Amino acid sequence: MLEAMQDVIELATAPNARERLVRRFMRVRGRTVGLVAPLTPEDQIIQSMPDVSPTKWHLAHTTWFFEVFVLNRYAQGYTAFDERFGFLFNSYYNNLGSRHPRPQRGLLSRPSWDEVQRYRDHVNAACLRLIRQAPDEMLDELTKVLTLGFNHEQQHQELILTDIKHVFSCNPLLPAYQTAPNQPAPNQPVASTAPQKWFENAGGLVEIGCDATDTAFCFDSETPRHHTYVQPYRFAGRLVTCGEYREFIDAGGYSDPRHWLSDGWNEVETQQWKAPLYWQKQHGEWQVFTMSGLRPLVDSDPVCHVSFYEAAAYASWAGKRLPTEAEWELFGRTQRVEGNLLEYGGLHPTASPCAGMGPWQMFGDVWEWTASPYSPYPGFKAPPGAVGEYNGKFMCNQMVLRGGSCATPSDHIRATYRNFFPPGARWQFSGFRLAEDL
Amino acid sequence: MLEAMQDVIELATAPNARERLVRRFMRVRGRTVGLVAPLTPEDQIIQSMPDVSPTKWHLAHTTWFFEVFVLNRYAQGYTAFDERFGFLFNSYYNNLGSRHPRPQRGLLSRPSWDEVQRYRDHVNAACLRLIRQAPDEMLDELTKVLTLGFNHEQQHQELILTDIKHVFSCNPLLPAYQTAPNQPAPNQPVASTAPQKWFENAGGLVEIGCDATDTAFCFDSETPRHHTYVQPYRFAGRLVTCGEYREFIDAGGYSDPRHWLSDGWNEVETQQWKAPLYWQKQHGEWQVFTMSGLRPLVDSDPVCHVSFYEAAAYASWAGKRLPTEAEWELFGRTQRVEGNLLEYGGLHPTASPCAGMGPWQMFGDVWEWTASPYSPYPGFKAPPGAVGEYNGKFMCNQMVLRGGSCATPSDHIRATYRNFFPPGARWQFSGFRLAEDL
Amino acid sequence: MLEAMQDVIELATAPNARERLVRRFMRVRGRTVGLVAPLTPEDQIIQSMPDVSPTKWHLAHTTWFFEVFVLNRYAQGYTAFDERFGFLFNSYYNNLGSRHPRPQRGLLSRPSWDEVQRYRDHVNAACLRLIRQAPDEMLDELTKVLTLGFNHEQQHQELILTDIKHVFSCNPLLPAYQTAPNQPAPNQPVASTAPQKWFENAGGLVEIGCDATDTAFCFDSETPRHHTYVQPYRFAGRLVTCGEYREFIDAGGYSDPRHWLSDGWNEVETQQWKAPLYWQKQHGEWQVFTMSGLRPLVDSDPVCHVSFYEAAAYASWAGKRLPTEAEWELFGRTQRVEGNLLEYGGLHPTASPCAGMGPWQMFGDVWEWTASPYSPYPGFKAPPGAVGEYNGKFMCNQMVLRGGSCATPSDHIRATYRNFFPPGARWQFSGFRLAEDL
Amino acid sequence: MLEAMQDVIELATAPNARERLVRRFMRVRGRTVGLVAPLTPEDQIIQSMPDVSPTKWHLAHTTWFFEVFVLNRYAQGYTAFDERFGFLFNSYYNNLGSRHPRPQRGLLSRPSWDEVQRYRDHVNAACLRLIRQAPDEMLDELTKVLTLGFNHEQQHQELILTDIKHVFSCNPLLPAYQTAPNQPAPNQPVASTAPQKWFENAGGLVEIGCDATDTAFCFDSETPRHHTYVQPYRFAGRLVTCGEYREFIDAGGYSDPRHWLSDGWNEVETQQWKAPLYWQKQHGEWQVFTMSGLRPLVDSDPVCHVSFYEAAAYASWAGKRLPTEAEWELFGRTQRVEGNLLEYGGLHPTASPCAGMGPWQMFGDVWEWTASPYSPYPGFKAPPGAVGEYNGKFMCNQMVLRGGSCATPSDHIRATYRNFFPPGARWQFSGFRLAEDL
Repeated sequence: MLEAMQDVIELATAPNARERLVRRFMRVRGRTVGLVAPLTPEDQIIQSMPDVSPTKWHLAHTTWFFEVFVLNRYAQGYTAFDERFGFLFNSYYNNLGSRHPRPQRGLLSRPSWDEVQRYRDHVNAACLRLIRQAPDEMLDELTKVLTLGFNHEQQHQELILTDIKHVFSCNPLLPAYQTAPNQPAPNQPVASTAPQKWFENAGGLVEIGCDATDTAFCFDSETPRHHTYVQPYRFAGRLVTCGEYREFIDAGGYSDPRHWLSDGWNEVETQQWKAPLYWQKQHGEWQVFTMSGLRPLVDSDPVCHVSFYEAAAYASWAGKRLPTEAEWELFGRTQRVEGNLLEYGGLHPTASPCAGMGPWQMFGDVWEWTASPYSPYPGFKAPPGAVGEYNGKFMCNQMVLRGGSCATPSDHIRATYRNFFPPGARWQFSGFRLAEDL
Repeated sequence: MLEAMQDVIELATAPNARERLVRRFMRVRGRTVGLVAPLTPEDQIIQSMPDVSPTKWHLAHTTWFFEVFVLNRYAQGYTAFDERFGFLFNSYYNNLGSRHPRPQRGLLSRPSWDEVQRYRDHVNAACLRLIRQAPDEMLDELTKVLTLGFNHEQQHQELILTDIKHVFSCNPLLPAYQTAPNQPAPNQPVASTAPQKWFENAGGLVEIGCDATDTAFCFDSETPRHHTYVQPYRFAGRLVTCGEYREFIDAGGYSDPRHWLSDGWNEVETQQWKAPLYWQKQHGEWQVFTMSGLRPLVDSDPVCHVSFYEAAAYASWAGKRLPTEAEWELFGRTQRVEGNLLEYGGLHPTASPCAGMGPWQMFGDVWEWTASPYSPYPGFKAPPGAVGEYNGKFMCNQMVLRGGSCATPSDHIRATYRNFFPPGARWQFSGFRLAEDL
Repeated sequence: MLEAMQDVIELATAPNARERLVRRFMRVRGRTVGLVAPLTPEDQIIQSMPDVSPTKWHLAHTTWFFEVFVLNRYAQGYTAFDERFGFLFNSYYNNLGSRHPRPQRGLLSRPSWDEVQRYRDHVNAACLRLIRQAPDEMLDELTKVLTLGFNHEQQHQELILTDIKHVFSCNPLLPAYQTAPNQPAPNQPVASTAPQKWFENAGGLVEIGCDATDTAFCFDSETPRHHTYVQPYRFAGRLVTCGEYREFIDAGGYSDPRHWLSDGWNEVETQQWKAPLYWQKQHGEWQVFTMSGLRPLVDSDPVCHVSFYEAAAYASWAGKRLPTEAEWELFGRTQRVEGNLLEYGGLHPTASPCAGMGPWQMFGDVWEWTASPYSPYPGFKAPPGAVGEYNGKFMCNQMVLRGGSCATPSDHIRATYRNFFPPGARWQFSGFRLAEDL
Repeated sequence: MLEAMQDVIELATAPNARERLVRRFMRVRGRTVGLVAPLTPEDQIIQSMPDVSPTKWHLAHTTWFFEVFVLNRYAQGYTAFDERFGFLFNSYYNNLGSRHPRPQRGLLSRPSWDEVQRYRDHVNAACLRLIRQAPDEMLDELTKVLTLGFNHEQQHQELILTDIKHVFSCNPLLPAYQTAPNQPAPNQPVASTAPQKWFENAGGLVEIGCDATDTAFCFDSETPRHHTYVQPYRFAGRLVTCGEYREFIDAGGYSDPRHWLSDGWNEVETQQWKAPLYWQKQHGEWQVFTMSGLRPLVDSDPVCHVSFYEAAAYASWAGKRLPTEAEWELFGRTQRVEGNLLEYGGLHPTASPCAGMGPWQMFGDVWEWTASPYSPYPGFKAPPGAVGEYNGKFMCNQMVLRGGSCATPSDHIRATYRNFFPPGARWQFSGFRLAEDL
């Protein structure tokens, strides 16, 4: 929190636009390096499943992003650090040529961690030089693409955390990323679960989405702002908790197909799901693998690391449903984005204090599965070229998540943000809240 | 057409409701038997991929549907034909107990084809007895569930055709289901492609979906009728043709990822797609495998047997998009449902004559992929029990198709109908038309 | 037995060599047709796993064998029944061009069963004509290749039985191929297991294999007859029984890796083996699926449908080992080949009466896994051309089985015969006996 | 060479048996550490396929071997370095409890490389203490098990090299393990291929295998020494070269199934084999990936990194065959084991100078595939307990290789040594020589 405020102060006091860009660049890039500080170079090259990327790959890929989208286009005479990195660290941009297969990212001991740091330094220096020396007439465009780069890097900051959590979970030694920051002292009472409140919304013809003429950044997928018609509904005041979810398990939720989507039940059977990812029962007690290692389950915590299928099955079992993204956004817009107070310190999703007058836990706890497939908004057009591949080509077979998690940088969170993952994904910090028809 | 009219006449002249039910029952069940007449018992047990079911399985499963949803519930003292069929011919109803695994349906040489006919006779007789003898107060409820059974059987009539087409396509001998009914005489000019027309719609707050209080049947997934907001748009007057699609292929459509959804491109690469299903090039000329065997491609025919991915890639390449299901329904409601004039006679999708004043080819040519994921309508609730599994549990990872194909029974087609398949499915009679923002 | 004797009489009384060939041709080809008599055309097109071929395919493939190896080469002016069958019914002969993929044999409803019968008739007529009209100087060569065709057809006679047994086992209705021929009358005592006897052999430098200059037929893989050195050993007088194998199961044989080969244990774990194929426990009692349907396990029967891995694990658990093929052949040569007395009537392996003076159950009960990998004998050379693919190219990753089973035609059995299957195969009539070092 | 001689001198001058053991222990364990010196910790945790283990795993597993087979049994009061390592670093010993799944060895960033070094130090110190302090009457037994540990470690020394070569080959940067030690100076003529000579052997009743009463170490699988009968044969004087193998490729060897075993051809088709592993064509010229990076193919080098299938196909194409292991051993016994002169320096298999009077390149160039399946020798019995799992349970589906490669420690090579790998394995330093019947 202190850091975030300091950030605001610094930006506010920056003498001019160029300097503000410089400071933001250094801060965003620096945070990434800070995030990997607890990790050894060995930790940073493991790919525990195809969805996961090694930390070192994230470090290089975010750097490559600035190289191809900023330096190659705007920095005259820029020399690539290593021509071969274009192949190695392109994630999925077909417009930018062929690339190293995703499932083989864990085979790259070289370039070494040291070399990737030098790559970062090289690109950082060139970017800073560019920001300071670019002609005035280039500055607007440069600011836009750099801002995209900052947001891109912030997305990978979260992925670094979700991915290393999965990596460590696959190691029988169950290493911890951090020591528990907020472990309750022994014999201290754990905060009890706040009672659920329900908030009503009359719906009607409303607007959602990001206004592209705004100065604030948003992704193309959040545009255009548009009308949509919402039926009257009720919206849960807080997230579903581990304790509530445990009741679903105890009621046989994972052995009765009736509340499951057909594809979801198929996953339960083939993947042998018995509980959320990272839950394990030891001597009859549920333990959860967290960024701080294995800890006893805390009933009042929001349930996390569930798939859309599990969220939907729980909702059906509870006689409710998940909110649509429009329903979510209508409430989200009324809430102040408090963000992640702990600046990655509190990676175990925690129960935030109740905000008296409206729904809470909307930002910075867990990503919230919605009932909405990730489809283009009416009137959406992907921009031409490689940047158009950023979001548009994924608009199929994915569900929208809203809100932002404890691993999301606080200044990356906003009410219109559309995160998306396939309905079976569980390794993100994903939970859910309930809704119902009025 | 004659048959359809005869049908209408018969129903109109039926002395009473019971007799109308009897006639409808006999007609629907009889059509299924007629459909399989060109097939040998050997043809009817092949399962060419997990999605496909053997014809014999369809014959037994539709019978089982009447047995469990009608006879077991309403026919006092009904004795099951064979207790073991409940396991063998349950498709996906978890509420009705365990069942034979879908991918193993092709391993069942027994019960023999003869025995399945006897099963049909047994259930038919019991249903007709029930219709004639049920107490008056049961008649409304009985009519509802029988009507569901009729519609269910009609769905499987179409599947029998799509499935046997796939089965035959896997046989190097390429057998034909029928002799070509409308093969142009040699040296006759083939109808040239009608020019594309575009129709505008101002959109706004509209209503779509089926009104459940209507007397006409619809599936639960078409309800409730509800408001939705539609932006102004243009709607193509006819389907995309084989000739147009061939241009996409010739332009390198299957070797350039830029117009494809990410999941779609993955299918192109792993499945080695080079053209729609059933197209094959011989000596430089495209041939298409049809219900009448292999025939030269006709440019003016609607393109068929494409996946949603291919439809979306074509649309992107053409600078357009697919219509949403609401956009489709707004035009669909204005068209008279002419249905499938050929009553399964013309299974190769053909160019129907242009209907001057509005879009055409909307019903009875090919199912049309829309841009809409198959999600529950606002306020949708699946009914309790097994019947609730009919549609609701599939509302994830599927796309909506509208209109009805040349294989769809004409009285099964309506403007609110929501067909659905996964975006990679190609063995249905699926094509598409274009739309664009106004 | 009667039939076999009649066969001998017929051959003995045949007026000349041509007529003997004619009679043998008709008898072998006729037996195949007799074997499929209990099956419907529907039964005959199922492929329950890639290793299994549909009955109809066997009927056509054995016919194709005579067409390509006999008629195409020796019958001047022979016209193929259908040119496309060369592609459909070639099994694995690369020298004879491309072929239909093995795992897709179950997709062929066409050619129909009737057409395959006409194919057989067509080829039979042409072969008989050739035998009767071939020039005298061709007769020796023709006899050789026809004899290969007879032996080939006999191999497929056994496969027809093993394959249909697997097909039926995959059907929850568990159909029977035949009514039990030798079901003990109720309340009759079942033959108790004969005590195991051990026979010693001093080994030394011995000869095994078939002498190619013999007039009797043998496969190339049985040649050349050659010296090999055998250490002194003991040889079990009878096969391991179901009762003995049950003790291995009860002792935890399938849950303790210590007696298993590494690859075998891997199969146990991935295939979830708990008992021989076709064994199932119902209400605490072992049942076995046989050609006559499901029957209670008979302790004194030879254990059957075990893999090499299971045979080797049992042997290790029992403190013994499997015999090598040389060790087997030394005893096999001293036994009269009694063959399969029941002529396919007794397909459930049965306990044959004890033959006082030597090991018994060596021929016509179950194929016996040996400890010998299927390798070429010293000096073996595969013949040139397609016929060279018959055996030689399979001499890797397979184990030798000796003896012949209750499904093997009696005149196809001999002491030098080398059957072979991969060590994990279980759907053949395969059992084993024990040996040990002296 | 110098080092090896120094070794001999050291051992010869050691004051006593204990000191000789100490020196051998330090030398063997020290060599392992030397081998990994060119690698970063990041290099050492990659598992590029399930067959490959990370270097760090090899370092820990060989240490674990001494811990469980030596310290836990003989060192009173020994405290395990970390109790959890028994699970992590057990390779395949079922007798020693459950273990980490082999395909997941590449997921272990922890324990760190440093910690594994401390593990080695801990075990080394305890072993040395034990050697020096063990009671006299324990010394014989201790020597035996330590010797097994030395040989085990030497096997893993070779695997460290073959595995890291595969790891590096999967990295598009193609890193080198070493700088080329013996790169010919530019414009120097490359040694031309020595002409093939053939040596005859009359065969007969011979003895092969290791005499267990010998003082020299051998593995259980090399025993017992036993009689076998060998037919007269010819044996090639040198290995098949890259140039010769290239002719096979140019003659269409990889596109014609006729010379291939059936399983081999299946590998060619499914794995898309076109040449030996590590060969790649650039601008029409063959390049080979070596421990020194990518280098042009040298025709006179022995062909290496071929599977048994490729060796057998080449031999068939050349009208010869592979020698059996007995045929190989008869010549191997007559050759002085010169071993690997370069002590891991010359990891690219090289053409050694022709040894005038007999076959050459028998030791220390490439492992030579033989025609012999890896079966137990007559009379073989695996020892009881975990040590019995060392070899015996792999005696199925593997082929014997003889001789030793440029990556094999010279004092680990002997004429009776039976190396074994599945017939499709290519990542070992495996080549072959030809033989034929006389």
